[in-house]
Amino acid sequence: SRSINLAVIPGDGIGQEVVAEGLKVLSAVLPQDVKLETEEYDFGARRYHATGETLTDADLDALKRHDAILLGAIGDPSVPSGVLERGFLLKLRFAFDHHVNLRPSKLLPGVATPLAGQPEIDFVVVREGTEGPYTGNGGTIRKGTEHEVATEVSVNTAFGVERVVRDAFARAQARPRKKLTLVHKNNVLTFAGHLWTNVFNRVAEEFPEVTTDYIHVDAATIYLVTDPARFDVIVTDNLFGDIITDLAAAVSGGIGVAASGNINPSGAFPSMFEPVHGSAPDIAGQGKADPTATVLSVALLLRHLGHDAEAARIEDAVSADLAELPRSLKGTGGTPTGRPARSTSEIGDALAVRVAG
Amino acid sequence: SRSINLAVIPGDGIGQEVVAEGLKVLSAVLPQDVKLETEEYDFGARRYHATGETLTDADLDALKRHDAILLGAIGDPSVPSGVLERGFLLKLRFAFDHHVNLRPSKLLPGVATPLAGQPEIDFVVVREGTEGPYTGNGGTIRKGTEHEVATEVSVNTAFGVERVVRDAFARAQARPRKKLTLVHKNNVLTFAGHLWTNVFNRVAEEFPEVTTDYIHVDAATIYLVTDPARFDVIVTDNLFGDIITDLAAAVSGGIGVAASGNINPSGAFPSMFEPVHGSAPDIAGQGKADPTATVLSVALLLRHLGHDAEAARIEDAVSADLAELPRSLKGTGGTPTGRPARSTSEIGDALAVRVAG
Ligand SMILES: CC(C)[C@H](C(=O)O)[C@@H](O)C(=O)O
Ligand SMILES: CC(C)[C@H](C(=O)O)[C@@H](O)C(=O)O
Repeated sequence: SRSINLAVIPGDGIGQEVVAEGLKVLSAVLPQDVKLETEEYDFGARRYHATGETLTDADLDALKRHDAILLGAIGDPSVPSGVLERGFLLKLRFAFDHHVNLRPSKLLPGVATPLAGQPEIDFVVVREGTEGPYTGNGGTIRKGTEHEVATEVSVNTAFGVERVVRDAFARAQARPRKKLTLVHKNNVLTFAGHLWTNVFNRVAEEFPEVTTDYIHVDAATIYLVTDPARFDVIVTDNLFGDIITDLAAAVSGGIGVAASGNINPSGAFPSMFEPVHGSAPDIAGQGKADPTATVLSVALLLRHLGHDAEAARIEDAVSADLAELPRSLKGTGGTPTGRPARSTSEIGDALAVRVAG
Repeated sequence: SRSINLAVIPGDGIGQEVVAEGLKVLSAVLPQDVKLETEEYDFGARRYHATGETLTDADLDALKRHDAILLGAIGDPSVPSGVLERGFLLKLRFAFDHHVNLRPSKLLPGVATPLAGQPEIDFVVVREGTEGPYTGNGGTIRKGTEHEVATEVSVNTAFGVERVVRDAFARAQARPRKKLTLVHKNNVLTFAGHLWTNVFNRVAEEFPEVTTDYIHVDAATIYLVTDPARFDVIVTDNLFGDIITDLAAAVSGGIGVAASGNINPSGAFPSMFEPVHGSAPDIAGQGKADPTATVLSVALLLRHLGHDAEAARIEDAVSADLAELPRSLKGTGGTPTGRPARSTSEIGDALAVRVAG
């Protein structure tokens, strides 16, 4: 479409800073004839403290009207753990049925990794986003006593597993290596494990060109540090996906460059794009945050909306920038080469110039 | 005590080979006046195929009479996933109430790590062993249909969490750095998360000398590869512990050297010691398995039974052996220095000579 109507949620901490740069690059990359409209929403800690609200029905109605959502980060130490996570982030994923949580990991030339020997890393994790232990199912009895019992129920449905597994197969099919790995813990979580494994094997028959394998989640963490090149596309459950994508980000350049999309492939609701990192209150407001992860999330957003050429231009710009001015491992915009660290907006400026040029 | 009555479970695959070396080193390290009695049990794939049994009540009665159990590995591709895991390994942990799953990670001098810059790694994970998503609680309805629903219930009790948290605090208190980190996902798994966090904070008051912190499990995987030196003792839930200890093993020398204990500190049932690695059927019977993890598990076993000096002698022997003849990353007994790889029994022989010497 020749216009993009974007909901922008800067959120807390460094979210504000990195989203500004994401929008800067987005404006720079779009051709003249694509009209960009943005509307900013004030979700996060400030709104919660002011009103007690995290995400209301009216908010959801408003967000629903956009083509896509760009989020910075939500979370602040002043808010009890879980309130904004369950009340905003997860509520939105569930309300908009963001069942494909897409998290690419690519170690770009020149980027520092904690792994020795600069291995080849280029894979995508398709994390289920609306089931598993994330549903909020469970409870507590005898709270605060020595007899307290707390449960968490992982809910897995054939419907929910199949749609995300099929999405992952299609993504694997479209990549040169055509390889899909299921990550689960089917030797212990046998109920959910059998469902995932059976659905995976059934859908595999529809994709004869895709090579498949299975790895337990614990072993997957080993391969991610000893042989990450073995992965092409990974499909996994909500919680396992949460864990291994942080590890994947760490080994492929750090969370300073890790992008993600919370996607509803049906288009019934807008999809949301955000850096994998959090609000990092310790460095907020200092121009130290690396906006690259947000900029790469903008590329995912553009590809989702069909602007493939612009998405590729952003990715190329990031590659070139990283190759020339590699980031430090901390993802703060510093460089390991002894050059002065660039600020958040200097990195954004450089990327905006590159995509425009 | 001046005698050790040991149950030995070689199990499947390389289990046979590595347990033989563990026993070799155990015999060599014990003083003349400590009588070692061993009884071997044939659990695992062969027994399962022959009789359909994994672990009977009579087996449990027999095992109960020993002072401790040494296990090699259980598991074979010929047995459906979950049968031996749930039917033997987990059944034994639950039957003998092995609630402290102890997994030390120490990167010894000269040992290869996939991490750049040879970081300092010396921490212990105390993984809860009898609760969480491991209880087998859950089920499946409409199996095999498009309406299948499968659940897994994580069960957490104040009783179960408190005893393992207290054990971890005591271990932290006894170490020079006196630091304990709780790893959980309390921003999403809020029922279990609150229980763990509240119990942790309450028990912390009894250990004022111990420094505490909290990290989400996803972030913990990042620190394990970017800053493992920040950890001293970690306490965590059964599933999170399973995942992060494989990663911890990978970064601190590989699963070829990772030891573990499934401990019942009350002594009501014998504790079990085993390498973290599995049965590795691909290299079984070839003398390629590194027995070091099993030998280090024997050291944990000895310390558990009060033979501290002998435990230390084994650990020193392993350190010296690794410093002189480092293992390859794959844990197969090969060396990255170009020397010919030693076989499983050559490594065992070398360690036996060192501990006796
Ligand atoms: C903040 C939290 C709810 C979230 C998750 O667990 O999904 C985050 O860790 C992520 O990976 O996006
Ligand atoms: C084999 C399996 C049941 C076991 C576990 O998940 O606990 C293993 O991975 C381990 O860590 O000891």
